[in-house]
Formats: sequence, structure tokens, C-alpha cells
Amino acid sequence: MEQKALLNLLKEMTLDEKIDQLQQLATHFFKGASEEGEITGPITEMGITEDVVLNTGSVLGASGATLTRNLQEAHLKENRLGIPLLFMADVIHGFKTIFPVPLAIGSSWDLELAEKSAEIAAKESAVSGVHVTFAPMVDLVRDPRWGRVMESTGEDPYLNSEYARAFVRGFQGNDLTNDKNHIAACVKHFAAYGAPEGGRDYNTVNMSERQLRELYLPSYKAALDEGCEMVMTAFNTVDGIPPSGNEYLMRDILRQEWGFNGVVISDWGAVKELIPHGVAQDEKEAAIKALRAGVDIEMMTTCYVHHVKSLILEGKLEESLLDESVLRILELKNKLGLFEDPYRGSSEALEKEVILSESHRKVARELATKSCVLLKNENILPLNSNQKIALIGPFAQSGDLMGPWSWHGAKEDVITVEMGIQNKVTEEKLLVAKGSDVLTIAEEQLQQAVETSKHADVIVLALGESSYMSGEGGSRADIRIPEAQLTLLNELKQLNKPIVTILFNGRPLDLHGVVEQSNAILEAWYPGTEGGAAIADLLFGDANPSGKLTMSFPYSVGQVPVYYNCYNTGRPFSKDDPDNRYVSKYIDIPNEPIFPFGFGLSYTTFEYSKHYISNNTLSADNPITVTVQVRNTGARAGEEIVQLYIRDITGEVVRPLKELKAFQKVALEANQTKTVSFTITEEQLRYYHRNLEFKSDNGLFEVYVGPNSSDVVAFTFTLV
Amino acid sequence: MEQKALLNLLKEMTLDEKIDQLQQLATHFFKGASEEGEITGPITEMGITEDVVLNTGSVLGASGATLTRNLQEAHLKENRLGIPLLFMADVIHGFKTIFPVPLAIGSSWDLELAEKSAEIAAKESAVSGVHVTFAPMVDLVRDPRWGRVMESTGEDPYLNSEYARAFVRGFQGNDLTNDKNHIAACVKHFAAYGAPEGGRDYNTVNMSERQLRELYLPSYKAALDEGCEMVMTAFNTVDGIPPSGNEYLMRDILRQEWGFNGVVISDWGAVKELIPHGVAQDEKEAAIKALRAGVDIEMMTTCYVHHVKSLILEGKLEESLLDESVLRILELKNKLGLFEDPYRGSSEALEKEVILSESHRKVARELATKSCVLLKNENILPLNSNQKIALIGPFAQSGDLMGPWSWHGAKEDVITVEMGIQNKVTEEKLLVAKGSDVLTIAEEQLQQAVETSKHADVIVLALGESSYMSGEGGSRADIRIPEAQLTLLNELKQLNKPIVTILFNGRPLDLHGVVEQSNAILEAWYPGTEGGAAIADLLFGDANPSGKLTMSFPYSVGQVPVYYNCYNTGRPFSKDDPDNRYVSKYIDIPNEPIFPFGFGLSYTTFEYSKHYISNNTLSADNPITVTVQVRNTGARAGEEIVQLYIRDITGEVVRPLKELKAFQKVALEANQTKTVSFTITEEQLRYYHRNLEFKSDNGLFEVYVGPNSSDVVAFTFTLV
Repeated sequence: MEQKALLNLLKEMTLDEKIDQLQQLATHFFKGASEEGEITGPITEMGITEDVVLNTGSVLGASGATLTRNLQEAHLKENRLGIPLLFMADVIHGFKTIFPVPLAIGSSWDLELAEKSAEIAAKESAVSGVHVTFAPMVDLVRDPRWGRVMESTGEDPYLNSEYARAFVRGFQGNDLTNDKNHIAACVKHFAAYGAPEGGRDYNTVNMSERQLRELYLPSYKAALDEGCEMVMTAFNTVDGIPPSGNEYLMRDILRQEWGFNGVVISDWGAVKELIPHGVAQDEKEAAIKALRAGVDIEMMTTCYVHHVKSLILEGKLEESLLDESVLRILELKNKLGLFEDPYRGSSEALEKEVILSESHRKVARELATKSCVLLKNENILPLNSNQKIALIGPFAQSGDLMGPWSWHGAKEDVITVEMGIQNKVTEEKLLVAKGSDVLTIAEEQLQQAVETSKHADVIVLALGESSYMSGEGGSRADIRIPEAQLTLLNELKQLNKPIVTILFNGRPLDLHGVVEQSNAILEAWYPGTEGGAAIADLLFGDANPSGKLTMSFPYSVGQVPVYYNCYNTGRPFSKDDPDNRYVSKYIDIPNEPIFPFGFGLSYTTFEYSKHYISNNTLSADNPITVTVQVRNTGARAGEEIVQLYIRDITGEVVRPLKELKAFQKVALEANQTKTVSFTITEEQLRYYHRNLEFKSDNGLFEVYVGPNSSDVVAFTFTLV
Repeated sequence: MEQKALLNLLKEMTLDEKIDQLQQLATHFFKGASEEGEITGPITEMGITEDVVLNTGSVLGASGATLTRNLQEAHLKENRLGIPLLFMADVIHGFKTIFPVPLAIGSSWDLELAEKSAEIAAKESAVSGVHVTFAPMVDLVRDPRWGRVMESTGEDPYLNSEYARAFVRGFQGNDLTNDKNHIAACVKHFAAYGAPEGGRDYNTVNMSERQLRELYLPSYKAALDEGCEMVMTAFNTVDGIPPSGNEYLMRDILRQEWGFNGVVISDWGAVKELIPHGVAQDEKEAAIKALRAGVDIEMMTTCYVHHVKSLILEGKLEESLLDESVLRILELKNKLGLFEDPYRGSSEALEKEVILSESHRKVARELATKSCVLLKNENILPLNSNQKIALIGPFAQSGDLMGPWSWHGAKEDVITVEMGIQNKVTEEKLLVAKGSDVLTIAEEQLQQAVETSKHADVIVLALGESSYMSGEGGSRADIRIPEAQLTLLNELKQLNKPIVTILFNGRPLDLHGVVEQSNAILEAWYPGTEGGAAIADLLFGDANPSGKLTMSFPYSVGQVPVYYNCYNTGRPFSKDDPDNRYVSKYIDIPNEPIFPFGFGLSYTTFEYSKHYISNNTLSADNPITVTVQVRNTGARAGEEIVQLYIRDITGEVVRPLKELKAFQKVALEANQTKTVSFTITEEQLRYYHRNLEFKSDNGLFEVYVGPNSSDVVAFTFTLV
């Protein structure tokens, strides 16, 4: 449809129709979804009329070619102007083929595979009738207590931005109108939802605008720069005002400064939540504030449909604000080609062909192998198929490997760890016992695990958090492996057999107890549908671990927040003067995390040498190059993630000790050497000054290259 | 001296003399302090000449009439213009008569006694030749991991402000020039030192200007409104720039907006620390930034004396900036009457008379009884002198009851818990065993404690942190009572005798284990010189506990930060729907602290009734009154701290669930009733709006009255 036709359509719409277009309702409100439900239950509860449902602009959570077609068909039959519904859903890390959780994908440092995973998720969604996914979530995270860290790619603004771009590319492709294998993306949660105080979900966020701009905003901006069609508001406050009513954030920064013209949607209920937040006294005020802030779609609450009409009629709200929002929604529908084809690519036949296809599973398996992080290995891994293995633990046979935000995935499609190992060894080599549940342990379970393990050469222990323990609403104050499982580990340790621990979890954990007692640790996160297959590939050396952490593992919860890109302080701790009381440290634990950002082991080893910097001065016109030779010094092929960090020694405001500015993933055969080269430009050296001006300062810099954020070689250069 | 004479003196000073006036050095640099030391050691290390020492403006840490007189005399003999030295010292919670630590004083809610304690500290310091104390510390604190929370009065901006005023009045009196029993106060640490990330001392502080102004600045401002003569810069950053180089904070806010004309001093080394912070590349730049920010005195580093001269001669720094700083220092010396009497009130005879006098000890004992907080009491306390008591624990006989920042206090002057109890009971009624050390326990110690306790009717267990474990540089990631002492408690619990636990500590602790296993808990903090006497008074009912917490005790370190004046969030937890996952909560612990702000028990009980509000509308011209009747329903006299909180239901920005706005401490005989009355004015309802305008909004408010921040009765009113 031409833009002019859209404008005409807008003109034809009644005030009610326009307002209803801003409403988003869940599936069960609609005809075709439930023949009974639409008039009674939910509609009555929400106090909306059938007319609102008939004119609603978008649907939350519907998927499946049959269902979405039925819904759309029923809708178009009754909708006066024939405006199609938009189907939106939470497709976070896969639709039916579930990929590792985003924090795991983060650990792959593999932007191509990340993009590919989003592309597959889009394709499976698209054939199921979904038009928009509420992803990527690109919130920067520093507090592992928060349950939703599993949904982020970690603590680094640069890496998060790169992933944001990759996911948007993967979901959206290049031509949403004609390419019906892709869907629109909705970046979230704008802004700074990843910094709730105390790691308690939905809690207050407090930070300076400097911190907001320097750390939290870049990843959202990156997604938008990549063409992301939608933005979702965050639940938290930003400088005292929730985004759903925050004009400075949503108008001044998002729309004016960044030029975003797409659709903004509230998170579930977030418009009405302006009331409990205490910035709106009632739904009416919530509606005013949200619409003024430019929230186009209200998800699952009804402040708009109940109050915008009277507000406009009373002259308290300009109709132009409403028109603006409606137009943006119509434009998105048009961009998705819905006016021409309201069923846009949905197809039962394609569902059968595409969903969980072998090629999709293959990518899921590959990404899972790249997402696992080998945290420790005392020459135990890889195993060989002659060893007798006792596979123990609540995750040994569990299908709970998909993690939170995998609603469309089914446990029965999951390759468990047991199944993965079964494919590698003969039957008599694998003994299995549960040992404990996730949170409890029975004496009988324990005895069985001990008995089983006695007959094995090596114990493979599959421990972790159930997916209930992270994700939305899954904040934990205690971030250890549950006591029951530590008991299991301690008891098995008495057998004096090598223990390989595989961890399934949605956050960095306090791994005390696990680290000391395990001979090898593989952090598997929630690896997805192909999790067990990928883990078996890694355990037996058919794949070589290459993942590296993108969020620091704290020494204990009392050290939180801990992250690599911190400031030096005026009294930094020095290893040369460890007993100095008057430096920034704890008296009972070290300052360092137990595993730092960027850390991960391999079955082979890499040697860094011939560090070289092309010039000791850099200017806007003359970038410099840093090179390093990386050699695979072990006996098997492997991939290494070479990381480059920069420190601005003196700034107008304090600057981080290190900032990741580039990385390269290099595949090396045994004994192979590659030269890795990074270009450093003046642009990479810019930061927000006291007055929030974004620019660089001449002066001294340090650049660091290495395999993780701790273990680096430094060069200096001067910006002139 | 007249101001004109001061200006003339300034004119007579050479550039070097002026710069040296800005230097503060520790005692051992000076003649009279150490006949050998002045030329060699420290001077060489710091690269300063003897001339600098001769012309130095102030001395850090010297006290004692003889020493300070000798130093001043030697100084004046050689100082060309006869400018006397200023003696400054850390007199935080008492000089030789040590009062409870400030967090304990906070718990007294007794502003008069707090003032009295500062007055006594001033008097003891003054006769010892001290002119300025680096107190009060008024940093708002929310993170018990930080070691210096013991030095603050807690988490509430209003209460902190009231204490700030009380301490300043107590230290300074009304006439510093003529009243030589008082000394100048120096409020610290400006600003927001109390919010180091992760509770790690000296660590980065990150907050919005709104938060800074709303929570952190009021207490410093209150001290200055009360006439506080000096301000000390904080170690941390404020919006990316350490205060010692932060013109916005130190010039724009402190001097221009607030009109402060007094002396600003850096904290120890904080000028030079601009370099490790990364906002100055060398000492020269540090000197420029600090002087431009208006830091008059540089403590213990030498950026000024080494670089200001050349900076002025090179035209990089205006001499007027230097003159301004020197004049402020001269003015302070003049205000203290030092030009007329450089020995200002110091006297060996007075030292003997005044220091640790009976009347001072009496106040220390009274304040200590009011500072202790009874956290639990299963009808065990008070004890009676017929009971056989087993006094056990590392603090039973310890003189480590003064806590950090009590340099001038001596352990041998301390009344221990044992001594206190000995004064209450006959010898055969008191059995004592150490049981454990603070951090370790030997089997023999434990056995002895168990044996001793077997013969007793009640076990009094004195547990806690050594003073090393809090205070500056004393940050802990684990805030439990050390394991060794929990073991002791657990073992004694097996005896099935009542256990009274007395806690000595400098921070809110995670009291799991202690709470369940103790029949009574008395939080004694570090109660000071008279600690044991005060505790014995409380144990035997000669005093009735009345203290209430001014900092929340977290459920566990994983809940930090937790404080009463938090925001509602958009998804508050509701007890009516406890299983709702999608609200702001942890899945493993409650949101509430284990003991909330304002909480404390008594040996008697108080009943609140006849709650009354004079009007349901309030306007700028018409304040309203809230009254409540409080009745002592128990059998003994007691004091109750009646608290008033307000909530602004809807604001332009989010508003706290409760804000303490007033309190009254009422003494009630058994069965006595008093009516407590509070006036609420429009002024109390103002807050910082989006644009940082400070004003109130018309609309609905709630006001709460009760014995602590949790247990309140609510009224509503409307501001019109």
C-alpha cells in the first residue's frame, strides 16, 4: 500500500477505531481462539466491549498457521475497514527449535551463528503466522541475582550492541515486505531494565544519565541502527519515571535524538503500572502520560481504550498524538505486507517442513557447542568411549534444558544429556542415576547415586537451576547451586573418582564448592533442544569448547556487582602491597570474580606472541593497527576468541580500566599459527564528557590483547 | 583580629608562604614532635623542604596539651609572619571518653545526648590542643558491607540531617572565638561517600543528580546550615569526577548554591588520588583541578606545594584562587582566636580535670544504654541477680568495645561486659569463659564454655565483629557473625538453657542462626568506654532498652541494598497474592529486612490509640496536626520513639513508600499515657521534580504513625 493510501485509511477511521488500534490483547480474547471466551471471562474482567476486540490492532502470543489464520479471518470478516491484525509473540531464543539462552549465545562470541539462530526462529515463527517477535532483549546486566540475565548477552556494551545487530539482521532479513521468512523485531527493554536494584526483578533503577548513555543505551541504539522495527518500554524507572510515561527518554532521546519512527509498545501492563509506580493517579493520567511519551501500543491493559476518547473530546489530549501512533502501527502492518496478504507466509505445510527440521537442529547443536564454556579441566576432558561413565544429577535425564522463554519449545523434542551420551558410547559404558532433585535430596537417591558411581571410571554430574529459577520473576538472593546438589557432589567426591560437572543455569553462579570438588566443569547454560547432543560432542571431543563468558562469575553474592569494565578508584588494590588496609577491597574476599569476563578454556592451548603495534601515535586520520600471532600449541583443532581492550588513562571523567573494543574468533588446526590484526580508530576512543558531549581526548591510552579480560598484554599509544 | 588585618597579613605573605599554608602534614613532620624526624624520613619521602614544614598551615592528628604547645611554640619561633598552626584530628565519637559509634548513637534517636556527646568530645579535645575535628560524618548509608556504616547515623536523610545539626552544635557551641571548650567541626565526606558500589570502600559511586540531591546532600547541607566551619571532600566519584576535582559539586553547588564560605579540606591524599582515578594525568593537573574546585587544604600529599607556584608563574592558575583559599584558612584561624591565643584552651591541668571525668563517663554510659537495641526478648530479660550467669564469648572480657575511630581511647579505660556484670551480682553468680576468639575456635575453648555453662541458669553470649572488621577499609562481603562464634552458639544451644546474645558490631548483620537460637538479643554495637556498665544496666533492668535501628538489618547479603524508604515499583509484592511470580520479589527470600528501620523492643509495652488527624486537607497556610495517644501498658517505666512517615501517593517522579518526617521520644511511667502531636506542613512535602525543581504537588498523601517503619497506622490527607 502506498503511504497516501495509509493516510487515507487513517482518515477513514473513527476515533474509536483509532484508539482500539492501539490495544493489544492476548489470544484468548479473539474469535477463532475460543468460541466461548470472547464475550465472557477476559472481556468482562477488563471491562472492554466486543467492539474493542473487533477493532484491536494486535494480538499477543498467538501462533500456529491454523490458529492465526482463523483469527485473522474472523477478524477481517468483522473489521469495518479490513485492517489486519498484527500477531506478536515472545520468540526469544528459538521458536520450536530452541537455541541456547541468549546469555549462552553471548558466550559463543559468534555473531554469524547468533544471526542464524534468529533467522531460523523467524522462519519457524513466520510460517506459524507470527509477524513480530519481542526480541532481541539487549539489556546490559551486571547483577546475577536478576533472573533475566539469561535473556541478555552480558555485561559489555560493545558486545551487546554487536549481538543486537546480529539478532535484528537474523529476525528481520533485508526485506520484510517481500521476504516472508522473516519477521519484525522489537528491541527491549528500553531502557536499562537490566539494572534493577538488588537484582530484584521490576525493582527501581537508579543511575546517572552518563552511565545510562555510556553503558545501557548503546545496545538499543545499535538494534535501531540495524533497522529494528519496534521498541518495547521497560518496567523499571529511568531517572524516577517509568519509560512508559517518560517523555525525555521516549520522545527526546528515542524519537528526536535518534530519529526512531517505528512502533513503541509497552511491556505487559506497563501503561497501567504507571499508577502503582506513583507517577499517574489513575488510568486516565496513565493514558495521557503514555501517549505523550509516544507509547503506541498498550499491551494487556486498557487505559487507552477507556480514556483516550474522553481525553481528546475534553481537549486534554491532542488527536494528532493518537493519529501519529495509529499511523505508525498501520505503517508497520503495511511494511509487513499485511494489507496485501494478511496471512503473510503462514502455512501448515511449511510448518511441517520447516519447524524442527534437521537443518535447524543442526544449527542449534552447533550453536550449543559454541555456547558452552569450559571453566576447569584437570586433563579429564575429553572423555573416551572406553571409560565407564556414571551420569548423575537432576539434569542427567531432564528435558529442562531449554531454559526460560522457550514457550513454544517442547521437552519431548529435547535431546537430554543421557540421550546425547547414549549416542557416543555402548550401553554398558553408561550408568545413570538421578542422585537428587533440583532442590531436594532423598537418602535413597543419594545411595543409588553412590552405588552407581562406584562402578564407573568417571562421574559426570549434571547439576544446576531449574528454568523456573531464572527468567522473568526468577530473582534469587542466593546464587549458589542448591544445597541438595552440593550434598550430592560432596558425597560423590568421597569416592575419589574424577568428577566432571556440567552446569545448567541461567546466570553466573557462586561456584564455591563446585570448583574445588570438580576435576572439570563445563558451563552449559540452558543449551536448548539439541543441548544433550552438543554436550556429548564436547564431552567426547567431537567438538572442542570455545565459548567464553560474557558476564563475570562473582566470587560470592556479597561481591555483586562485579564486572570487568570497572573504574580504577583513587585507591586501587595492588598485588604488590596486599596487606594495605586503605585500598578498595574487601577484608574477606578478593576483588576479582572467580571467572572473569572473556574467560573460557579449550581442549587445546593457544600461545600469543609477536605482539605488535603499528604506531605509537594515533590521530583521527591515521588509525593504528595492533597485531598478534596466535598459535595452536596443542594436539587438536580449536577456536580461540582473541580480545582487544582499550583504556583511556586520563579523562575528563573517570574511564573504565578496560573496554572491549574488538574481538576475533580464529579457528586453528593443531600447530597452526594465524596473525590477528585489529585496527584502532579515533572513533573507538570517544566517551561522554562531563556535559555529555561524546568525543575523544588527546593523550595516553593503553590497549590490551589477550584470551580474556584478565590475561592480556599491554601496549600504549597516544592520541594526537 | 579584624578582617582588614587578615587581608593585610595575606598581602604580606610570599607566594611560597601562601602555598604552604594550604598544606596539611601529620604530626611527625614537626619540630617538637620528633627531634630527629623532621629532616630525614617523611620530609625526604614527600620531597618537601624544611621551609614547607615551617610554613605549613595545619597539622593532622596531634593532640595533648604538651605536644601541641611544643609544636605551636616551635612553629611560631620560626614562622616569619607568626601565623599559628591549626591542629586537626579525627575525634569521631569521643576523644578519650569514647561514646558509642555513630550508628549506635543514631539508634538512640536522642539528639540532645548526641549533642552532649559531641560537646564532651570537643571539650576533651580542646584542652588537649585540638582545634578542628574531622566530624561529623553524615554520609547516608544503605549497604552494610561497607565498613564505614558504623560512622554514619544510618539510612534516613531526615534523621541524618538532625544528627548532623546536633553534632555540629555539640562540637562548635555558639562562639568559637571566645568559648575555648568547643572546637570547629568538619562535615564529611562531601559527597555521597556512603554509596560505594558493592559496599567496597573507596569504590565508584553512581547515582543520578536527583538521588544525590534527594537522599545524600541534605545531611551535609544541614550541618552547614548549623554553621559547620569546614567540609571534607570524599574519596569516591560524583558523576564521574572525584569531589577533590569536581567544580560542579564543590563550586556550583557547595559554594554558589549553598553559599558556603568556609574551608574545604581534601580527605587524606585525595588531591593526588585524582591521578589513579584517571581525571588528572599528573600532580600538576591534580593541583589545578583541586584548587579550581576550591579545595583549600591538601591533606598529606603535596601537589599544591610542588606545583601551584609554577602554575601561577606560568599563568596557568590565577593567584586569586590561591589567595581565596589562604584567606579562608586565615579566617578560620582567626575565628578560633589563634592569632590572639595560639595555644587556645590547651592545658595539662585541664586535661587531668576534664578527660574521662566522672560526668563524662556518666554521659557515655547513659548514651550507651540508649543506643542499644533490643531485637528479641522471649521474657528472658531483664535478668535478676539471683540467677547464675555464664558469660561466654570473645567479647565477654574484651576491651574492644570502642569500635573503629577511637584512636585516643584506651582499652584499659573500658568497662568490659564482665566488669559491668560484676558490679551487679555477687561473685558466685558469675561464671566466665571465652568460648572462642572472634574468628577461630579451639576445641578446648568450646569445652570450657560448655562446662562453664552447665552450671548456669542463663547463658549470656557476647558475640560480634572485632573493630578491625568495620571502619575505614573494613568492607566485608560476608556480613554474618563469624563461623567460629556461630559454632559456639550452636553448641551452647544444645544445653537447653536460655541464651541472651549481646552483639558487638559496626554494621547491620545477617543474623540468621543467631535469631533462631537466642532467646533474647541485645544489639550493643560498639558502646564505648562505658559499654560494659551500660549493658549491665540493661541486662538487669536498671535501664530499659529504648534504641531503635536507623539502618535495616538485611535478611541476607543477597538482599542488599534493603532500606525502608524505597519505591513501590510497578509490580509491588502483595501478601494477598504471595504466589504471583510476576511481582518484584526474590524467589528464595522475602523482600523485607529481618529487622526494619525504626525497630526496637523495650522491657515494657506501648499501646498506640486515638489516632487523630486535625484536617483532611492541608495547604501552605494551613498545616495539619496528627496526634496519637501512647500508653505504657507494662509494669516498668520506659521510653518510646514515636515515628511519623509520609508518602506522596502520586508524583511527577516516583516517591518513596515512606519518608520519616518527624519523631518524638516520650518517657512513660508504667501505665502512664501521653498524647504525642506532630505538625505537618507543606514544606515537608516538597521533593525534586523531573527538572530538579524542589516543590510540592497538590494531591493525595498518606501519613503513618507508629513504633517503627513497618508497624504503622495510616491516615490520608490532600494537599490543596
